[in-house]
Amino acid sequence: MHKALEGITVLDLGQIYNGPYCSLMLAYQGAKVIKIEPIQGENLRVRRKGDSHELLMLNSNKLGASIDLKSNEGKQVFLDLVKQADVVVENFSLGAMERLGLDYEKLKQINPRIIYASGKGYGLEGPYAHRPAMDLTMQAMSGIMSTTGFPDTPPVKAGPAVSDFLGGIHLFGGVVTALYQRQQTGKGQLVEVSMHDAVYPTLASALGAYYSQGGDTPERTGNQHSGKASAPFNVYPTADGYVAITCVTDKQWKNLLILMNREDLLEDDRFRMNVNRAAHTDIVDNIVENWTSKQYKSEIEQRLVDYKIPHAPVQTIAEVADDPHLKYRNMIREVYHPKEGQIKIPGSPIRLSDSPLEDISAAPIMGEHTEEVLENMLGLSKDDLSQLIDKNVIHTNKTKSNI
Amino acid sequence: MHKALEGITVLDLGQIYNGPYCSLMLAYQGAKVIKIEPIQGENLRVRRKGDSHELLMLNSNKLGASIDLKSNEGKQVFLDLVKQADVVVENFSLGAMERLGLDYEKLKQINPRIIYASGKGYGLEGPYAHRPAMDLTMQAMSGIMSTTGFPDTPPVKAGPAVSDFLGGIHLFGGVVTALYQRQQTGKGQLVEVSMHDAVYPTLASALGAYYSQGGDTPERTGNQHSGKASAPFNVYPTADGYVAITCVTDKQWKNLLILMNREDLLEDDRFRMNVNRAAHTDIVDNIVENWTSKQYKSEIEQRLVDYKIPHAPVQTIAEVADDPHLKYRNMIREVYHPKEGQIKIPGSPIRLSDSPLEDISAAPIMGEHTEEVLENMLGLSKDDLSQLIDKNVIHTNKTKSNI
Repeated sequence: MHKALEGITVLDLGQIYNGPYCSLMLAYQGAKVIKIEPIQGENLRVRRKGDSHELLMLNSNKLGASIDLKSNEGKQVFLDLVKQADVVVENFSLGAMERLGLDYEKLKQINPRIIYASGKGYGLEGPYAHRPAMDLTMQAMSGIMSTTGFPDTPPVKAGPAVSDFLGGIHLFGGVVTALYQRQQTGKGQLVEVSMHDAVYPTLASALGAYYSQGGDTPERTGNQHSGKASAPFNVYPTADGYVAITCVTDKQWKNLLILMNREDLLEDDRFRMNVNRAAHTDIVDNIVENWTSKQYKSEIEQRLVDYKIPHAPVQTIAEVADDPHLKYRNMIREVYHPKEGQIKIPGSPIRLSDSPLEDISAAPIMGEHTEEVLENMLGLSKDDLSQLIDKNVIHTNKTKSNI
Repeated sequence: MHKALEGITVLDLGQIYNGPYCSLMLAYQGAKVIKIEPIQGENLRVRRKGDSHELLMLNSNKLGASIDLKSNEGKQVFLDLVKQADVVVENFSLGAMERLGLDYEKLKQINPRIIYASGKGYGLEGPYAHRPAMDLTMQAMSGIMSTTGFPDTPPVKAGPAVSDFLGGIHLFGGVVTALYQRQQTGKGQLVEVSMHDAVYPTLASALGAYYSQGGDTPERTGNQHSGKASAPFNVYPTADGYVAITCVTDKQWKNLLILMNREDLLEDDRFRMNVNRAAHTDIVDNIVENWTSKQYKSEIEQRLVDYKIPHAPVQTIAEVADDPHLKYRNMIREVYHPKEGQIKIPGSPIRLSDSPLEDISAAPIMGEHTEEVLENMLGLSKDDLSQLIDKNVIHTNKTKSNI
């Protein structure tokens, strides 16, 4: 069975999370993805002084070539690759590709079919376009931070770098849309995604509250229902962590009362319907917390499942790393890495029945496939390669121990 | 200029955020998207008792048809539409489409070219597959919550419903990939995305810390650097809110000291290099906070820009709603809605140079295009339509005031 993007060649200049995740999704759907890094490695290898787990998570199924794009010979090698490629993915800071002389205007002269995917923090233009796009400041600027946390504590960033990944997955969608359009037009084009743009729709609930209630909306509501219109709806401490519990129907609430041995409250008008409970949220939360705090997560889990009350344990990272549902679904995969041994990395969240993700190979060692790519795609000889290595234009993992 | 997905017809059964966002992205790239809702409206209209801002944000550029899929005639109308459609998008709870008799196995008999996009909280199979997928419990289960918040306060959910939107945008990417593959194979297929799967890669930083440091990793680090390896790197109070500040280089730190009139610390070894500052994070934070807390955000902003220190204001929702960069980029658009008047809704984060998003029309009133769709696509006559209306199989916005 052919994979969906078989035959598509991607030059992945991505660094850290945004660009690499876009290209990972392309690789997982069958594209040939060549991760092109500077001689010293992409920024994530430099920052973490080696092949961190983050790098290994986001660069499976890619070939790795190490080319100095600042040198004239390196630029020429890259442009020769562009002639044969379908997609270029980059998420450098604004202006970097222009300074290298490798912006879209240049590349489309070389190859009018090239799809040039540009991921940026704030896009290619606008008043913020030159701001550095780091997770802390992006979460502050975009509104994620203001709406996260408790009413009585400062705004706090979401733990995961969600804006980077929202950027990367929107960029993937844009690339495949451009590939689809190219089938009709025969031409490539520029695909642009700003991480800051990609966060805005996710604020739907907060914007909804803002537009309907104006300045009276509390920005942060902790784990409570944003309209404070439902109870119980919160995260409650257990003896060994926390559990999230919510009752959508009055029947679920009654079942919870029975489970908690609080049948004495079954006829209490303060809690009869959701609107009543919502008016007494703090009391409801106290009642539930009295019950949860004395038990372990696993005991509560079983009882809430039996009584059909919507809930979930607040899973720690250790628990997520071992999650039975992710493992069952092959979303956590074990692959062999020559330096790190057996490692656990993600499968694909995008599942196509006719383009299944079967084999996963670990992220490339830096420069692991430089020779292979340049020989196979550009017909370079061993002598050509030696000269480029000697001039430090390219790097292969055979020339020195590089980590 | 033709839009990328011109000629593609999508039947959008999506509700709330996940499915509708996928279909919004398809509509914005030029597909004809028909939002098909039950007679009483999709779940978001029911919950909010009308056309909430959230609904208006996620359903622009779609036609609206109201059909009772539980009735035999309604099912038949839908199946007749499927014969002419390219894509079906649904994010009902697991088993709902099967109970309606409108699952993929059935639809592909009707139309082998149909691409069936199924968005679920936990996917179509696995030990959690039957768990309800609500934002509170998804954030608890997926690991977002455990890694969000301060070390000394409980885990807290991210303000935006990120897992819903991660699900929706991965689903969009999958749909367009399947459309691309269909060009080669002539066949449709099943596209599946689990929101829970889509969150896992976003935990890269936390998983990286976990795998490298084992159980010693603090789960929540507030706004501080997750490895506590950089300072200043935090959110600081101002007279009127908060500002995020980080110094990546020692030179930026020196500039900040000068800006804060703390040249007395320029030679202090405790702060000389980043590794030194990171060892004295609390002292560094105090110094910065003493300076920020006395000033307004706008004053600080200007000074930090002048001194080239990476930062961002923590924007409130009101500030995001009026953000000059989002407005410049047409990411906030004003459109006319017949009931709500002028409303502000999102443009497209995915920008294709050859498929620009020009015109946006507001989300449909419920049943606004039922007649138009059924007349144009199925050739139904006025009599046919009247009969279906009388039997409550379809609803049009001309038959009664529906909000």
